[in-house]
Amino acid sequence: MELLMLKAIIVGASGYTGAELANFLVRHPHIELAGLYVSPGSLDKGKKLSALYGHLLGVVDLPLQPLGNADIKTVCADIDIVILATAHEVSHDLVPLFLAQNTAVFDLSGAFRVQEAGFYDKFYGFTHQYPALLEKAVYGLAEWNFEAVKKTDLIAVPGCYTTASLTALKPLVEAGLIKDNTKPTINATSGASGTGRKASLASSFCEVSLQPYGVFTHRHKPEIDQHLGMPVVFTPHLGSFKRGILASINVQLKAGVTAQQVNQAYQNAYADKPLVRLMDGTYPALKNVVGTPFCDLGWAVDGEDLVAFSAIDNLLKGASSQAIQCINLRFGFAITTSLL
Amino acid sequence: MELLMLKAIIVGASGYTGAELANFLVRHPHIELAGLYVSPGSLDKGKKLSALYGHLLGVVDLPLQPLGNADIKTVCADIDIVILATAHEVSHDLVPLFLAQNTAVFDLSGAFRVQEAGFYDKFYGFTHQYPALLEKAVYGLAEWNFEAVKKTDLIAVPGCYTTASLTALKPLVEAGLIKDNTKPTINATSGASGTGRKASLASSFCEVSLQPYGVFTHRHKPEIDQHLGMPVVFTPHLGSFKRGILASINVQLKAGVTAQQVNQAYQNAYADKPLVRLMDGTYPALKNVVGTPFCDLGWAVDGEDLVAFSAIDNLLKGASSQAIQCINLRFGFAITTSLL
Amino acid sequence: MELLMLKAIIVGASGYTGAELANFLVRHPHIELAGLYVSPGSLDKGKKLSALYGHLLGVVDLPLQPLGNADIKTVCADIDIVILATAHEVSHDLVPLFLAQNTAVFDLSGAFRVQEAGFYDKFYGFTHQYPALLEKAVYGLAEWNFEAVKKTDLIAVPGCYTTASLTALKPLVEAGLIKDNTKPTINATSGASGTGRKASLASSFCEVSLQPYGVFTHRHKPEIDQHLGMPVVFTPHLGSFKRGILASINVQLKAGVTAQQVNQAYQNAYADKPLVRLMDGTYPALKNVVGTPFCDLGWAVDGEDLVAFSAIDNLLKGASSQAIQCINLRFGFAITTSLL
Amino acid sequence: MELLMLKAIIVGASGYTGAELANFLVRHPHIELAGLYVSPGSLDKGKKLSALYGHLLGVVDLPLQPLGNADIKTVCADIDIVILATAHEVSHDLVPLFLAQNTAVFDLSGAFRVQEAGFYDKFYGFTHQYPALLEKAVYGLAEWNFEAVKKTDLIAVPGCYTTASLTALKPLVEAGLIKDNTKPTINATSGASGTGRKASLASSFCEVSLQPYGVFTHRHKPEIDQHLGMPVVFTPHLGSFKRGILASINVQLKAGVTAQQVNQAYQNAYADKPLVRLMDGTYPALKNVVGTPFCDLGWAVDGEDLVAFSAIDNLLKGASSQAIQCINLRFGFAITTSLL
Repeated sequence: MELLMLKAIIVGASGYTGAELANFLVRHPHIELAGLYVSPGSLDKGKKLSALYGHLLGVVDLPLQPLGNADIKTVCADIDIVILATAHEVSHDLVPLFLAQNTAVFDLSGAFRVQEAGFYDKFYGFTHQYPALLEKAVYGLAEWNFEAVKKTDLIAVPGCYTTASLTALKPLVEAGLIKDNTKPTINATSGASGTGRKASLASSFCEVSLQPYGVFTHRHKPEIDQHLGMPVVFTPHLGSFKRGILASINVQLKAGVTAQQVNQAYQNAYADKPLVRLMDGTYPALKNVVGTPFCDLGWAVDGEDLVAFSAIDNLLKGASSQAIQCINLRFGFAITTSLL
Repeated sequence: MELLMLKAIIVGASGYTGAELANFLVRHPHIELAGLYVSPGSLDKGKKLSALYGHLLGVVDLPLQPLGNADIKTVCADIDIVILATAHEVSHDLVPLFLAQNTAVFDLSGAFRVQEAGFYDKFYGFTHQYPALLEKAVYGLAEWNFEAVKKTDLIAVPGCYTTASLTALKPLVEAGLIKDNTKPTINATSGASGTGRKASLASSFCEVSLQPYGVFTHRHKPEIDQHLGMPVVFTPHLGSFKRGILASINVQLKAGVTAQQVNQAYQNAYADKPLVRLMDGTYPALKNVVGTPFCDLGWAVDGEDLVAFSAIDNLLKGASSQAIQCINLRFGFAITTSLL
Repeated sequence: MELLMLKAIIVGASGYTGAELANFLVRHPHIELAGLYVSPGSLDKGKKLSALYGHLLGVVDLPLQPLGNADIKTVCADIDIVILATAHEVSHDLVPLFLAQNTAVFDLSGAFRVQEAGFYDKFYGFTHQYPALLEKAVYGLAEWNFEAVKKTDLIAVPGCYTTASLTALKPLVEAGLIKDNTKPTINATSGASGTGRKASLASSFCEVSLQPYGVFTHRHKPEIDQHLGMPVVFTPHLGSFKRGILASINVQLKAGVTAQQVNQAYQNAYADKPLVRLMDGTYPALKNVVGTPFCDLGWAVDGEDLVAFSAIDNLLKGASSQAIQCINLRFGFAITTSLL
Repeated sequence: MELLMLKAIIVGASGYTGAELANFLVRHPHIELAGLYVSPGSLDKGKKLSALYGHLLGVVDLPLQPLGNADIKTVCADIDIVILATAHEVSHDLVPLFLAQNTAVFDLSGAFRVQEAGFYDKFYGFTHQYPALLEKAVYGLAEWNFEAVKKTDLIAVPGCYTTASLTALKPLVEAGLIKDNTKPTINATSGASGTGRKASLASSFCEVSLQPYGVFTHRHKPEIDQHLGMPVVFTPHLGSFKRGILASINVQLKAGVTAQQVNQAYQNAYADKPLVRLMDGTYPALKNVVGTPFCDLGWAVDGEDLVAFSAIDNLLKGASSQAIQCINLRFGFAITTSLL
């Protein structure tokens, strides 16, 4: 019996996340990577992806084709899956156009993640035009929303810091272990790839150095708040490494909550989830997750104080591999397909 | 008029901190570096310091001489200053011997930092034999204890994490700004030099990676508690860089405390302290302090939430340059002498 | 039709190369990873491989079993493939024992690479006891010896520097382009993983720095000489990165040799070899090969001067993935199986 | 007796080299840093240097003032020393203007380094307008041209690769040890700061990786040739570190030349030069020179093959500290003043 192959395209394929998505899709046994697209004005238009990413030479040699809005109907003729690794504003505009072609859309931007009045005006600098789509969009936190992901054509894949933070915090919230009227504090450090592939002085080799940024202003803070259901204090940091996020989280537990209850909450949430690894008495280290689709979780309890640690590859579990998880869920493939 | 030169020796001079101390002292206009010592069993005995630290070739070419307890009297004949960059247990044993020779002793180990019953048994694995000296020892947090430092012969130079943490937190405590019954949380990341110069798998180049360690068990946590006067939650991390510590600190402020009050607290504490730099609307970055004797502080307030950041070079402000500050204080030299 | 699965074991599985081999084998569709072994005295005995290498948690959780010589017959009962990632002396002793069990042996040590009187005494510090096996061993430089590899049970997988150097130089020698009585000079820089997984001061995070070592004395120099068929000047360097080797090679061409002839020599050698990538007017960069099984080659000609550049991942093409290539060749699988 | 202080200004002070120069000058006991200048169109105009370089906060807080050609006469009223850390074309235009004001000019660009017809057209893209100044300019290779440096007002401070290469090769050429009709080959690796402080994709944190560049085309190759007096093959590489250059040099010695003769050549050249350190049986490592004004040299001889290694900090001995050496020479200060 011949396997039915789905056809997928990547829009915004020239960035770090786009390259990772392509690398996963050429290994996927049930999906054909049918095309890579960039905006018509991109300087990378016409180049092979492997001309930008030498490690993909001989692996993904497809060209980066220009995609104007007028091309969408033709391009989508036999496409099942569209992955958007585009800027937030671009995704905002493209999503309805692709949905109109009956493709399933997996959007890695922030454009459809948060249903809160004024959120996009405040944190993304534009007014959202598609409130109905925002409502319809399913948040693709793969370990938590898998039933909903199966039934939608618009998946908003979560942000990198958000994935790391929510994966660590949601089990505690679900189990009701966090003290009332307290806020978890999240201190997270991301590799320089989090700023994307671009020329900027701040991300030049000699300038990158461990430091906080976006203090009290980062857009992932309200994204965490909404999908966690409670407010947090979130402080992102830039680290002097290429990839990975480590989130260190302080939580005050309700009086009387035991370490055993915390362990149980994590076990309940993830014992059957192959891409979240619960450390057994040790703690996550970036080297163990970089280049992998895993989220590693570790924690410790001392009285009412809990510290939890969450580590991911920001470009993989924090973006591309979580998108592939969502695709696998949506189309009924094993969740680790092409990822392990 | 001929300047009077004091004579100093460094014991435990073969480690990273010892090398930094030597490098400062050869530049000091009022101090002569009179000798470098290691334990009689050291494999580095007899080598020049510059044979271990190639960057010091032509700068500090003194030999590492063995120092047995029986040699102390002779060695100290005309010595004014003894700097101990030795292991905690070794410092514990050496301090009374050097004090008996009427030298001023600056101890960079943890052996005389904390006056708390059972502290050394629990956190250092030995029972302290010199409670009277512990009581007499002045904690060398240079910006805070300068009057006391001037009048003692035993200065316990603070730990690296402790220096970063206390420098950020003490102004808030002194000003009474921290909410009652809350604990500041400190997440700090240190470069690999914090583990010292030694062969170990964990500190080998391919194994070092951003990760937490010593969760709820690190000995700098009670050191911070004691010298701050209130309990904290402290989580140290190892970072994949050589030098520097960045501490990110979350504090809950008393209701009604304003950003202006916080700013004023920091100004009051440090406006006249040349080696603590208050950022003006920006945040510390490791690159700005590594290789310098500064502690950089930045902070932001959002309602009752405050985040503060403190950055130091762990081997300098976190050890050797703070020792030099203490020496400068003790002997009446300008506090930045040989440091800037 | 059910696929016939071969069974393989890895001896010396606790090192960096062993971990990479295991990671490849669990992905191989025609080979079952049947066991991981360490020496009976290993401190890692009994641990899971993923306890040493956290990135393999959930991927390779097999235990590291002790293997004494007396166990070999039992262990080999139904084993087709033995991969030795053991120390040179250990491989020297184990190879005849495994061959006696009719397994195919792929040895990643240096113990069977060079057939030259006195070589092992001089460069490895032991006298070789199995000259007949040395003669029988096929050198597993996969792109060059594929016919011979198919017909032997003892493959000596080349050294990392040697693979990088020979891949760049052999096409020139085969085509007769190098000036008589001149020696190619090779300056190669390797990541710190080349020294293996071990505690040592020299490989500690704070000590590693770009520098030459083994000048005129490195054991890969005579290995290159023998398999190239001419002497070279070889200078290895340690670089401050984890993985990868870049070899920069200077060659004097015979008078009249053109750039076109050089291009043709490389095309002839590698046009049909999927794991050697010929750059087209650009040059190799470490980032493009690290984590991949490729060798990237680039070169330029200026009159009689040629510079060639060769880049590999030292643990993959320089060790484990080349071993897998040899296994694929030996058993008739596509050469890139489990590698791409 | 009051010390006479010379007054110096730095033009092009916003770059990495400018910042290093400023840092040296504020420590110089005989020179006052009288002003920092940038071009009138610079975006950094008006900022404090420490706003660009946080490590200089509290150390060099002078503002970056705009300098138009019309301002030069006024600015130079009481200035003794002008240091140009400007782009090549800018230095080309500024040098005659500053010389007309009777200042001593130390130019760190390539604009006055090479007296060869057509050199600037070919390698710098402009036609040189001041052949008489080119002839008058003294090449500031401090250890070699110190008598000439004392007597001129225009010093062309050498390039970074050139300094590393010439320091290693000139003693061999002077002693006549290099085989006739052979070319030394130089493979040198520079840290990313060599590309300067700027936004570019190629120098972004995630893109920098060990790789060759400028193969057979780098402008330091003819600079080396001219000041060495013989042709070389020069291959520069970019390394994944911030600072430092390591040059690895292969030379064919004349028949019969002994290691002793090579040693003697180096001793003759540098025994009395405090800023060139001759390794004694070891080899240079970047970590030993980064942050220092030293050039470290090591070498080994095997028959007619010599390899030599030269390590410098590209921003210091390869630029700013060598400029200070030249200033010290020119004005009769000890050559290491403000450097050690």
